[in-house]
Amino acid sequence: MLVQKFGGTSVKSVARIKNVASIIARAAKQDSVVAVVSAMGDTTDYLLKLARQVSDSPDRRELDALLATGEQISVALVAIALNELGTRAVSLTAAQLGITTESIHSAARIVDIDTDRIRRCLADGFTVVAAGFQGRTSQGDITTLGRGGSDTTAVALAAALGPSACDIFTDVSGVYTADPNIVPTARLLKEISYEEMLEMARVGARVLHPRAAELARKHRIPVRVRNTFDPDHEGTILKGADEMEIYRPVSGVTLDRDQARLAILKVPDRPGIAGEIFSALAGRRVSVDMIIQAFHEDRSVNDITFTVKRSDLDAARAALEGAASRTGAEGVLADEDVAKVSIVGAGLMDQPDVAARMFSTLGEAGINIKMISTSEIRISCIVSDKDAERAVRVVHDLFHLDAEA
Amino acid sequence: MLVQKFGGTSVKSVARIKNVASIIARAAKQDSVVAVVSAMGDTTDYLLKLARQVSDSPDRRELDALLATGEQISVALVAIALNELGTRAVSLTAAQLGITTESIHSAARIVDIDTDRIRRCLADGFTVVAAGFQGRTSQGDITTLGRGGSDTTAVALAAALGPSACDIFTDVSGVYTADPNIVPTARLLKEISYEEMLEMARVGARVLHPRAAELARKHRIPVRVRNTFDPDHEGTILKGADEMEIYRPVSGVTLDRDQARLAILKVPDRPGIAGEIFSALAGRRVSVDMIIQAFHEDRSVNDITFTVKRSDLDAARAALEGAASRTGAEGVLADEDVAKVSIVGAGLMDQPDVAARMFSTLGEAGINIKMISTSEIRISCIVSDKDAERAVRVVHDLFHLDAEA
Repeated sequence: MLVQKFGGTSVKSVARIKNVASIIARAAKQDSVVAVVSAMGDTTDYLLKLARQVSDSPDRRELDALLATGEQISVALVAIALNELGTRAVSLTAAQLGITTESIHSAARIVDIDTDRIRRCLADGFTVVAAGFQGRTSQGDITTLGRGGSDTTAVALAAALGPSACDIFTDVSGVYTADPNIVPTARLLKEISYEEMLEMARVGARVLHPRAAELARKHRIPVRVRNTFDPDHEGTILKGADEMEIYRPVSGVTLDRDQARLAILKVPDRPGIAGEIFSALAGRRVSVDMIIQAFHEDRSVNDITFTVKRSDLDAARAALEGAASRTGAEGVLADEDVAKVSIVGAGLMDQPDVAARMFSTLGEAGINIKMISTSEIRISCIVSDKDAERAVRVVHDLFHLDAEA
Repeated sequence: MLVQKFGGTSVKSVARIKNVASIIARAAKQDSVVAVVSAMGDTTDYLLKLARQVSDSPDRRELDALLATGEQISVALVAIALNELGTRAVSLTAAQLGITTESIHSAARIVDIDTDRIRRCLADGFTVVAAGFQGRTSQGDITTLGRGGSDTTAVALAAALGPSACDIFTDVSGVYTADPNIVPTARLLKEISYEEMLEMARVGARVLHPRAAELARKHRIPVRVRNTFDPDHEGTILKGADEMEIYRPVSGVTLDRDQARLAILKVPDRPGIAGEIFSALAGRRVSVDMIIQAFHEDRSVNDITFTVKRSDLDAARAALEGAASRTGAEGVLADEDVAKVSIVGAGLMDQPDVAARMFSTLGEAGINIKMISTSEIRISCIVSDKDAERAVRVVHDLFHLDAEA
């Protein structure tokens, strides 16, 4: 049993759909295949635009019903292409797949997969072409899983069906030590641990959505990231940290430009204030990433600085300005021109000097670090957007990521 | 309870979707409304084109799954527009509507409607926006009802929900005595009998699909044909012949240009031959309309002439050429440039001279009649396509259809 997943760029056109069908058909000669497919190219954006022309804040249940058509179109076309190639195939929507989610529209989580129908189709010799990104509630309403939802569908199906192997086909050959467009000497990783993949996905690597990486880790699914346009390439395989053949202190450098920095200045230092500020942000559905709270000298006021997605900046600023006036804070500062440069490595913990070396190297390169955050296997620095690509290159050089480990 | 149906031209653009929503919202102030909506404008043709680019003969199950997205998009957008207007609305697909069909793809018939969910939504104060044209099999596969399917969905829902009234909104103000584009003096009919509507729909009137007219007749649904772009107009109402206020020998003249004529010449006159010929046509899914069998003088051979849809001509010719060579017939003639002019009227039966007057008038106008067929309430003539519009006008004049009856 094999789950394959093809993203939107892989099925952007009729020609690409035929290419995807030929990849699936080849795999179907050896395995029972469930192919998870995203909407074609920009379909989702087009549908969103239509909805926004009808309403500034489209009803979320209806928006999900609308967006789910994107995947229904692409799975039907892929199934048509497979049947044309002589590979018997059926497309299945989320409802037909038995993927039940919470009743939360636009970012529903999968609660259960009833694999009966999939297994019956596979047993009857059909290849299943599964609509990614969508789900249905126990009441039969259509939901969507949010950004990266098709990755999640694929890994969740791989978990429910076995667990079985899961190939994520995308437009690059796997997981690199850095974006090759920024670092020409970036090297493809043959393997990466679940934990590293999860951290890299969170801080900018786009090959796999963090939620899917998390699911893969939880169920220990052997996910392989592969290239739709070079399907013979082995790609990168995800493994448990204990199964990794090669020890590397640092596995990769990522860049996330979808960042903005906000500060609320001289907030009175009394209990409940931080809660009030972050409730205001949550009320506008703004997720906060890094947070720094700095005491002023007189200790009666604080500056609170944090980062959000750049697209959330306006909503965040509006929320903060309200909170500032209610709490008596001095004001709000916003800075759009920032980016987050991160290093990720399972061996970071064992190498206490890695952080120091990273900060020194950035400093020597004249790159100012505005904020720092760390996890067990990640160190992230907020820098000016204009310095960001150079920062990725100097850090990549520093840890010799171009060389085989 | 009121069912409203809006066709593809009524929801062709965002502006038109908003117009449709305003019509529904107004009705929802007085009635519990189920609005059946077709795919936007040319969506279905676009999706068909995509499928044909992937395969010359797309798998029919998958084609239905593909085409059904057209209606899912439009119902979601109409529901978004309604919610924007403050009218609480939910879109429902065929599966959610509980519309079960046969397992025949691309032209499935409705076998059952489980109205539980619709009734629950209406009871909860929601307006239901129902996807037309689609169904699902008892196994949960997606089907489509074929051309005119949304009309059928609307009338079938009206039957299942009551029976309740059913307004078919289209781009003209109702049923006319003839196409106003051809006959400027054509008059709008205030009422028409089910039987007349059914015959007119069969022979070219496009306001209501024949299958929907048949269902309306069977369940005596008070269907009203109305204009989306002039929603205050009363339109035309369908009634039982016994309820008609006005007696008219002839109610309207229709024109069907989607016609071609085929003849298979000098077919040996032996048992089973006709069956063989028409099996060959059925094998290529060609529906035959009018049929004439003419004896030759020596009585050992026949000419069989019939009409098919123009789009079926190539398939029909191929089938016939095979049949001709197998049966020893002389050959096949095809004539694309024909059209069918029909008069329909509940009173035709009582007026035996109507047919004679129609044929004489066409003859006096120099229009050659190539074939004739009749039913109890219809007389159809096949004429040259170039004469067709003139034929409609002289017949419309002959029966004074421009004057109030």
